[in-house]
Amino acid sequence: MAMVCLSDFEAYAKKYLPKIAWDFFAAGADDCCTRDENILAYKRIHFRPRMLRDVSMMDIRTKLLGTEISFPVGIAPTGFHQLAWPDGEKSTARAAKAMNTCYIASTYSTCTLEEISAAAPGGLRWFQLYIHRNRAVSQQLVQRAEALGFQGLVLTADLPYTGKRRDDVRNGFRLPPHMKLKNLEGAFEVCKMSPSIDPSVTWNDIYWLRSLTHLPIIIKGILTKEDAELAVRHGVQGIIVSNHGGRQLDGGPATIDALVEVVEAVQGSIEVYLDGGIRKGSDVLKALALGAKCVFIGRPALWGLAYKGEEGLQDVLRILQDEFRLSMALAGCASVSEIGRHLVQFSKL
Amino acid sequence: MAMVCLSDFEAYAKKYLPKIAWDFFAAGADDCCTRDENILAYKRIHFRPRMLRDVSMMDIRTKLLGTEISFPVGIAPTGFHQLAWPDGEKSTARAAKAMNTCYIASTYSTCTLEEISAAAPGGLRWFQLYIHRNRAVSQQLVQRAEALGFQGLVLTADLPYTGKRRDDVRNGFRLPPHMKLKNLEGAFEVCKMSPSIDPSVTWNDIYWLRSLTHLPIIIKGILTKEDAELAVRHGVQGIIVSNHGGRQLDGGPATIDALVEVVEAVQGSIEVYLDGGIRKGSDVLKALALGAKCVFIGRPALWGLAYKGEEGLQDVLRILQDEFRLSMALAGCASVSEIGRHLVQFSKL
Amino acid sequence: MAMVCLSDFEAYAKKYLPKIAWDFFAAGADDCCTRDENILAYKRIHFRPRMLRDVSMMDIRTKLLGTEISFPVGIAPTGFHQLAWPDGEKSTARAAKAMNTCYIASTYSTCTLEEISAAAPGGLRWFQLYIHRNRAVSQQLVQRAEALGFQGLVLTADLPYTGKRRDDVRNGFRLPPHMKLKNLEGAFEVCKMSPSIDPSVTWNDIYWLRSLTHLPIIIKGILTKEDAELAVRHGVQGIIVSNHGGRQLDGGPATIDALVEVVEAVQGSIEVYLDGGIRKGSDVLKALALGAKCVFIGRPALWGLAYKGEEGLQDVLRILQDEFRLSMALAGCASVSEIGRHLVQFSKL
Amino acid sequence: MAMVCLSDFEAYAKKYLPKIAWDFFAAGADDCCTRDENILAYKRIHFRPRMLRDVSMMDIRTKLLGTEISFPVGIAPTGFHQLAWPDGEKSTARAAKAMNTCYIASTYSTCTLEEISAAAPGGLRWFQLYIHRNRAVSQQLVQRAEALGFQGLVLTADLPYTGKRRDDVRNGFRLPPHMKLKNLEGAFEVCKMSPSIDPSVTWNDIYWLRSLTHLPIIIKGILTKEDAELAVRHGVQGIIVSNHGGRQLDGGPATIDALVEVVEAVQGSIEVYLDGGIRKGSDVLKALALGAKCVFIGRPALWGLAYKGEEGLQDVLRILQDEFRLSMALAGCASVSEIGRHLVQFSKL
Repeated sequence: MAMVCLSDFEAYAKKYLPKIAWDFFAAGADDCCTRDENILAYKRIHFRPRMLRDVSMMDIRTKLLGTEISFPVGIAPTGFHQLAWPDGEKSTARAAKAMNTCYIASTYSTCTLEEISAAAPGGLRWFQLYIHRNRAVSQQLVQRAEALGFQGLVLTADLPYTGKRRDDVRNGFRLPPHMKLKNLEGAFEVCKMSPSIDPSVTWNDIYWLRSLTHLPIIIKGILTKEDAELAVRHGVQGIIVSNHGGRQLDGGPATIDALVEVVEAVQGSIEVYLDGGIRKGSDVLKALALGAKCVFIGRPALWGLAYKGEEGLQDVLRILQDEFRLSMALAGCASVSEIGRHLVQFSKL
Repeated sequence: MAMVCLSDFEAYAKKYLPKIAWDFFAAGADDCCTRDENILAYKRIHFRPRMLRDVSMMDIRTKLLGTEISFPVGIAPTGFHQLAWPDGEKSTARAAKAMNTCYIASTYSTCTLEEISAAAPGGLRWFQLYIHRNRAVSQQLVQRAEALGFQGLVLTADLPYTGKRRDDVRNGFRLPPHMKLKNLEGAFEVCKMSPSIDPSVTWNDIYWLRSLTHLPIIIKGILTKEDAELAVRHGVQGIIVSNHGGRQLDGGPATIDALVEVVEAVQGSIEVYLDGGIRKGSDVLKALALGAKCVFIGRPALWGLAYKGEEGLQDVLRILQDEFRLSMALAGCASVSEIGRHLVQFSKL
Repeated sequence: MAMVCLSDFEAYAKKYLPKIAWDFFAAGADDCCTRDENILAYKRIHFRPRMLRDVSMMDIRTKLLGTEISFPVGIAPTGFHQLAWPDGEKSTARAAKAMNTCYIASTYSTCTLEEISAAAPGGLRWFQLYIHRNRAVSQQLVQRAEALGFQGLVLTADLPYTGKRRDDVRNGFRLPPHMKLKNLEGAFEVCKMSPSIDPSVTWNDIYWLRSLTHLPIIIKGILTKEDAELAVRHGVQGIIVSNHGGRQLDGGPATIDALVEVVEAVQGSIEVYLDGGIRKGSDVLKALALGAKCVFIGRPALWGLAYKGEEGLQDVLRILQDEFRLSMALAGCASVSEIGRHLVQFSKL
Repeated sequence: MAMVCLSDFEAYAKKYLPKIAWDFFAAGADDCCTRDENILAYKRIHFRPRMLRDVSMMDIRTKLLGTEISFPVGIAPTGFHQLAWPDGEKSTARAAKAMNTCYIASTYSTCTLEEISAAAPGGLRWFQLYIHRNRAVSQQLVQRAEALGFQGLVLTADLPYTGKRRDDVRNGFRLPPHMKLKNLEGAFEVCKMSPSIDPSVTWNDIYWLRSLTHLPIIIKGILTKEDAELAVRHGVQGIIVSNHGGRQLDGGPATIDALVEVVEAVQGSIEVYLDGGIRKGSDVLKALALGAKCVFIGRPALWGLAYKGEEGLQDVLRILQDEFRLSMALAGCASVSEIGRHLVQFSKL
């Protein structure tokens, strides 16, 4: 089977992963409307491609908070990579480094931050965290991440409680006994997932987080201009427009639709990223045209791992990279700096 | 089979109810466009969820005309509960009381009002009525309901004649011989359903109804701002925006779409409720965001009864309650009073 | 099989008619977009039904150019009724008279005008004509119709050439040898259909037609305001908004959509009717709400004939009548005069 | 099997062509959204047909840059006609000449320009070219074409690199060994397709092309008003609004949608043509109504070749011609000059 585009990896993963793992990765909340909208929304955005521009030298590099990456696609934080591949997050780290892009490691990793760091020294990594009821747990995680050379903290804002994913309920999903939430071991007994997360967190906790670290803080899960303005006002360095892959509140907007108002609200004062629904290089180009500095992939990274671990994830990233470069060229842009709002229009339909 | 969401109950009921009963409950008028629109319309409404708000203490209680209920979902009036479960409306009354919410008992119950009252003393109940050609029948029903402690009268306004439900015609639907329209027994011979209802009723009859009782009057079946204004002018205490589950005039608007103009028209002077199409907790949240004080479920209550009587209906209500609480939290609302128009937007599609 | 709604008759006709006849009646031009749009367009029009209006006495009668009919649905001109039922147009005439409505007999009838008249003396009938290259043919037909008591002339304007109906081409459709275009026999050899029709006809020919007869002239096939204004200016008495059932130019508007601009253009100076896509009583109500004085059914009449001849067509008309009366009542209108633009809105979708 | 409309030829070609050839011709880039939109977009454009206009004498001729053709449909440049029929482009040339229309021969022909010319002397032909890294190759091709009597040069602007057509990648598509890119033989080794095309080409290269030839230059692949204005400013004689049949950048607009802004931008200063999605005579009429001077067919021409070579392509053209003439007549236009913007409206849907 030739792996030509990301759907090929999806088909592979669906076929070869244990059903309970596939279901967990694929799950959306409730009727999965938002999960599916994340993808459908791209079809309503049309390019306005420009012709006869010199695209012989293509420059697809960009910078994340000042650090160069090879192209504007990183790895979104997702949990439990050992469900997809035995080496788990170590493979993810290696692939991201090999492709010279950013990997956001999840708190819910099945490898420790230390193992992740050691697997791919020098790679650009951010750490995704929740604020726990036991603040000491969060504080310890932040300090471990900073000490290990992680270069950003991604605070997930859209999970005061876990969304209702019907298949996980039906399957009675839980980690197999030989996998652990390694980062939280010892910190407290982790028998369920969410109870340790504090649903009372507010914007003021950003100040507390700020006090713990010198790392830039990126807030993940913002979908409205109101919250984008609050994020700026509370001094974060970046926003990831995200609906948690449609796994939290069903009925929210597609991220590519929400992106527009968030970008307008921040007026360039901080960087805005996006995750959700990226399946082709042209999706990346649309997100950048609408103001995203970079996008992150969640499920496609897991499909790549499921296919061949580090190598499979590199394949996924390389395909996206090639498609993105080609889309840029065919739209008449030779470098990322030439991408702009003029490049797209929303379909009337 | 795990009962995870309301569609699970629907699938169960479709499988286990006699076809003639399933068809009767499922029926819509003509092509069932309005019945189906009631559900589809929710998909065109998107949340604008807010993040990082303290949602550790959730308060989902609300009040119906001053009486507190545990959450803003009640039981809409539907007929013939014995078709779904042997104990019929007695089970419904017990489940509603157990869940501390409001049950609107239908004139077309297969238990008497007295049996319903006795089944769950002290529960919050309203009584749904028609105005009959023989006004004495209506008068007697109103006075029985008031005497039994029912706390509201719901006048159905959209059934001067019964809608054309094709499957019922094909099936030659009628109650099995051992079931009776108990509330109307003795009042007159009831061989068909509608002939006893008076199609000459007008707004002036509200004054007559008003003269019979001290109970609040709620009018059910309003879909336009014009009628909403008339309702206010004629002194009713509440409006249920309803299209009778799509069983009357096919081609009318989805109730969630009609809600907007009704809410605007009454300008807060009376309470506005809605029924039709509620299948998930997030649907409840959307209705409240658009101005409904409470919603009522029809068919899902019958599916719950069909599954396990009182217990099954409690399951249905508990699932909706959990989903509603979770949706509120994920949208950033800790109490019902924080829900508002800002929380939703109509999709351009 | 219970015949509950018009689709039941359609299913019957599809099953029992010879394929070549079914295909001919069902045919639309090219991809059948316009044929199908005629039906789909009704789903985008929503009622704004009004409640609590006295609908105990329903008056669904209307007038066609001053002559009362029992309800605002007549029989559109369609050809070759013997393909559907042995008695052909004689059955159609009898059913229309029995139901006290108007039958527009087609030039392409398989019975003569004289046979049609004799079959149902005193029935309200209009005669549909083309202007033939040989004007004497048209003149003779007009004079025969007038002499036989036909009360209106319906000039078809949208068939300078016959539309391309793929199935008819594939089937090599032609009348079976024992059927004849009886009205044209003797006038000239009729081996193909259209060649006798004059594609050079213009609005000036209306004056010529006017000079031949005292009958009112109704023009059929108008879809734009520009042509509606020309019709008024050329002194016709009525317009049938029609796209020939989607059998002529594929890609034109649904008739219910075109109706709006035609009604606006004529400003009440002449009567406007519609055919195409009427399948339910509520469709009739929508058309009247948008300004049609009456609608005409084409294919459903043929399905009725195919089912049981005169009796089957009466069934079809009676079902439409009952559905129309019920829809009116449920929308809050007790008489046709209460129907108006306020009763409907176009869906945003 | 009767060949009644273009889809019949498509079905034939799909059935009888080798899969690798069918896939190559059918291919669109990525998810094929743009390829499919090219067709779907026509369904959202409705005619406003006019009645009672003299359409007895139909004149469907038009002119391409001053040269008369029998009707406004030509043959778009597509490669590798021998994949469809042994005689390849020679058959295409003969069919185009027989039908008196324009054939745009592709650089990627499997016959030489000389063979094409000799096959149908005196036919109206344009030559499609790319600008190659080795400018001498392009120069030589231009001069050969001019010497052979080609009357226009069509510069393809939307292929700095070849689009990603998944099926071609999966199939490992390449020409069978007995077919050659005859026009490029000798010029250089052609092992892959695109590498010889220069991705650094800009608008300035139009001046260079201009300096080589007296032939009119038509630029193909323009989709925006900005580029249309640049085309005018750089002195080309015509624009073909095209997205390369959806084979290059997936996510671009349907050509019929892009046509509107291009036509507005050039304000009649040069001729505008269109390719993509033409499947019926009424599509041609819509394109002309929106301002195209002529349209070109790509895949349908190949289906015609696949069916019966020269004869099959003539069938395709004759069907389109008949359908176009009929659509014009039914819309009320007797000559191409009567077609205009008033004839169509964009559906609200």
